[in-house]
Amino acid sequence: MVIGFERVSGTGHAITAIDPRTGERLGPEYRYGGDAEVGRACALAEEAFDAYRATSPQERAAFLDAIAGKLDGLADVLVRRATSESGLPEARLTGEVARTTGQLRLFAGDLRSAQAGAGGAVLSVDPAGDGGPEIRQGRVPLGPVVVFGASNFPLAFSVAGGDTAAALAAGCPVIVKAHDAHPGTCELVGRAVSEAVREAGLPEGVFSMLYGDGPTLGIALVTDPRVQAVGFTGSRTAGLAIAKAAAGRPRPIPVYAEMSSVNPVFLLEDALAERGAELAGEYAGSLTLGAGQFCTNPGLVFAVKGTDLDAFLGTAAKAVEADPGAPMLTPGIARAYAEGVERLERHPGVEILARGREPDAVAGCRAALAAVDAGDFGPELETEIFGACSLVVRCDGLDQMIALARGLEGQLTATIHGGGEPAARLLPVLERLAGRILWGGWPTGVRVGHAMVHGGPYPATSDARTTSVGSLAIERFQRPIAYQGVPR
Amino acid sequence: MVIGFERVSGTGHAITAIDPRTGERLGPEYRYGGDAEVGRACALAEEAFDAYRATSPQERAAFLDAIAGKLDGLADVLVRRATSESGLPEARLTGEVARTTGQLRLFAGDLRSAQAGAGGAVLSVDPAGDGGPEIRQGRVPLGPVVVFGASNFPLAFSVAGGDTAAALAAGCPVIVKAHDAHPGTCELVGRAVSEAVREAGLPEGVFSMLYGDGPTLGIALVTDPRVQAVGFTGSRTAGLAIAKAAAGRPRPIPVYAEMSSVNPVFLLEDALAERGAELAGEYAGSLTLGAGQFCTNPGLVFAVKGTDLDAFLGTAAKAVEADPGAPMLTPGIARAYAEGVERLERHPGVEILARGREPDAVAGCRAALAAVDAGDFGPELETEIFGACSLVVRCDGLDQMIALARGLEGQLTATIHGGGEPAARLLPVLERLAGRILWGGWPTGVRVGHAMVHGGPYPATSDARTTSVGSLAIERFQRPIAYQGVPR
Repeated sequence: MVIGFERVSGTGHAITAIDPRTGERLGPEYRYGGDAEVGRACALAEEAFDAYRATSPQERAAFLDAIAGKLDGLADVLVRRATSESGLPEARLTGEVARTTGQLRLFAGDLRSAQAGAGGAVLSVDPAGDGGPEIRQGRVPLGPVVVFGASNFPLAFSVAGGDTAAALAAGCPVIVKAHDAHPGTCELVGRAVSEAVREAGLPEGVFSMLYGDGPTLGIALVTDPRVQAVGFTGSRTAGLAIAKAAAGRPRPIPVYAEMSSVNPVFLLEDALAERGAELAGEYAGSLTLGAGQFCTNPGLVFAVKGTDLDAFLGTAAKAVEADPGAPMLTPGIARAYAEGVERLERHPGVEILARGREPDAVAGCRAALAAVDAGDFGPELETEIFGACSLVVRCDGLDQMIALARGLEGQLTATIHGGGEPAARLLPVLERLAGRILWGGWPTGVRVGHAMVHGGPYPATSDARTTSVGSLAIERFQRPIAYQGVPR
Repeated sequence: MVIGFERVSGTGHAITAIDPRTGERLGPEYRYGGDAEVGRACALAEEAFDAYRATSPQERAAFLDAIAGKLDGLADVLVRRATSESGLPEARLTGEVARTTGQLRLFAGDLRSAQAGAGGAVLSVDPAGDGGPEIRQGRVPLGPVVVFGASNFPLAFSVAGGDTAAALAAGCPVIVKAHDAHPGTCELVGRAVSEAVREAGLPEGVFSMLYGDGPTLGIALVTDPRVQAVGFTGSRTAGLAIAKAAAGRPRPIPVYAEMSSVNPVFLLEDALAERGAELAGEYAGSLTLGAGQFCTNPGLVFAVKGTDLDAFLGTAAKAVEADPGAPMLTPGIARAYAEGVERLERHPGVEILARGREPDAVAGCRAALAAVDAGDFGPELETEIFGACSLVVRCDGLDQMIALARGLEGQLTATIHGGGEPAARLLPVLERLAGRILWGGWPTGVRVGHAMVHGGPYPATSDARTTSVGSLAIERFQRPIAYQGVPR
């Protein structure tokens, strides 16, 4: 564990990483921390807060750049370790290092240009007048932030991932609960961040990282009175437990939990007629990418029945059958995926159109493509099956498609293929459904930029008023404040 | 009641307004609505939402201006009725009409200039590139909003008050639960808004107003699945009940509850030495203004012991003793105030320095000034006593003052009088405490402008990341959304 500038070993339960390709245990052993470590990390974070938030945006920008520089320097080691721990391909993880450092540098740039109120910029001013003094609006950081990383992005949504970068940019100390599925990657990144804190001359409590059990150590962090906000990416069960614990505190705090999404795609008739085969190939590609382990995986597709849809499904089925499969992140995730597909198979209305090949991995994912008639579609088929599985809903017409869209749960993304009046009718429905609307393209692949929104209505996230990716993420860890007559 | 374009009478419990000056019942009788009215108002709001949010910012600006125009036209009638219902002075209510219309016009101006993302403006753009399409960030309104007005601002925080204006500006239909203490004022304003909806050619569900019991009709509104956000100003008990009900929904929604604040004022030694007498007069004025019935009333003052403080207290005591008193908003509020002051009197460490005169009113408020030594100060003395009561905490020195400030609950405002190093040390502590920091001046009197923040950490409000006054209030009823490749 990393507690401020100290390297600490826990005394609790021991975990080791497992290579999901081979089932091999990867040393070393990591031991869980307990109340003492939580208390120490929170005390240091609280102690560091005032000094850290008093840093200038330029100083914080330099600090974020320094973290990015350290990760660049570690890229080979990181990719190697993350590959063994996650089973994700090297190329993907190389890209993920770049995404992680790109995110840190994006926020550093935002701080330098004081975009979006980052770093205590003055957002608006009412000049003195009518006997009243000047009023300036700025933003203050919330306080120490706890970040729970995700298994599926061992770098970009983990120790130095989006929430950590945003909280540090905002002026908040961060305590990360390391993910059990990639403890070694966490250690490498955690040490790098801690070194960057030291080299920047910042107080040690700006960053800590603990190993521990979610329901005990995780909840202890969330309920510590010194913690002022929580970022989480993971399962709905865990996200809701965290949100509940935070709401039950004597002083509740915001929780940004990204939980689940099936990212509906709407294939309109014109698109299927014009470029059905091409779309089918893209669909299978988006669906099977990284064993489907993306929060933006296209898990649900709506299209109108007919020969164009039949042709689309035929082409997509062939592509899915040809998919070689891939290892999943953990044996537990592979098990949950297999059970999810079995449940789907047993559903009376669902037809399995294609299964991919069985991969050569202990924890492997066989892709699955299924279809159901709209009349047989129900909420039980909306549940995310994390992995390369997607369900196509055959609709009788546009009206039925729109009616089904209206009934869906909140989503991270919603995608339209097609145009004209059908698209125009669908768009406002999707604006109520999702945090990001795509017109063409596929939802996997979240661009890290100023305008991105990676969030959406409940239960995609616990708070739709924010994003976990993009410049606006910095504001989730700040609040507005007015200075009345306060000298500049 | 106003349900869309219909005027409806309820069939439940009957209420009448009471003139708190005389105890006289004021006709007519208003009857509570029930589930049927809640269902009808919510159905209309949901029906209206898509069409209303599709209006242009310019159309919504014209609509807000039209409401303001109607209130201007009604000003005399409104002031007369509100004076009888609230016991507040005519001059104050005349000012409140102007504040209410000013707020509507401020937001109309924001919509026209598309400030702060109001009205679906594009907030940021990542241009197309690297094979990826353009991504634009905008804001979409959340959906139908329920507004609970406050008793102490029968216009500016009621039917067409801040939350209603902000929600309408944001593109959300509004359902107001009318306040029992000023039902006639509510009726006048509710009808005016409904007429403005009709004249603007908007769908009738854009605005409804119901009379009803908070724990039944109020909670039924909050838990209706069509409602997507709640604005509330009132007591902590009611605010927390609403927040709990909203969090317990199958799909939780944001609640913006402004609940209670004692608005600590810190009198530093230099300020007391230089202009103690002047400050004492201002303090007594701020404290007794409107019978102290302001959420920004200075209920708690911290100062360092000594002859300057003694002189300050002597002058303030004289001013408070000379205060003629005033009627309070309702007999219930007057009773709660009297009980609060009695509790304070019974507290072993508290000394009552002065009581104001007994006013000639059934529900009157006698001002109270009390003091306590810092050693005897505890959380039980932090509870807001709604009315013209304030407690001065005598500190041994600046360190003790700062230590006490650190331990306070979240506040709407915090005020410093004085300068130099003591002020510089205090400022960062207050930044963690409050939504608005004043350097000089007194917290009563919230300027409606672009930069105002009327909000603050829990329990001052249930959500510190927003404001109920000022341009930023529009955003509380919107969420960010990204459009990827969507044609403009």
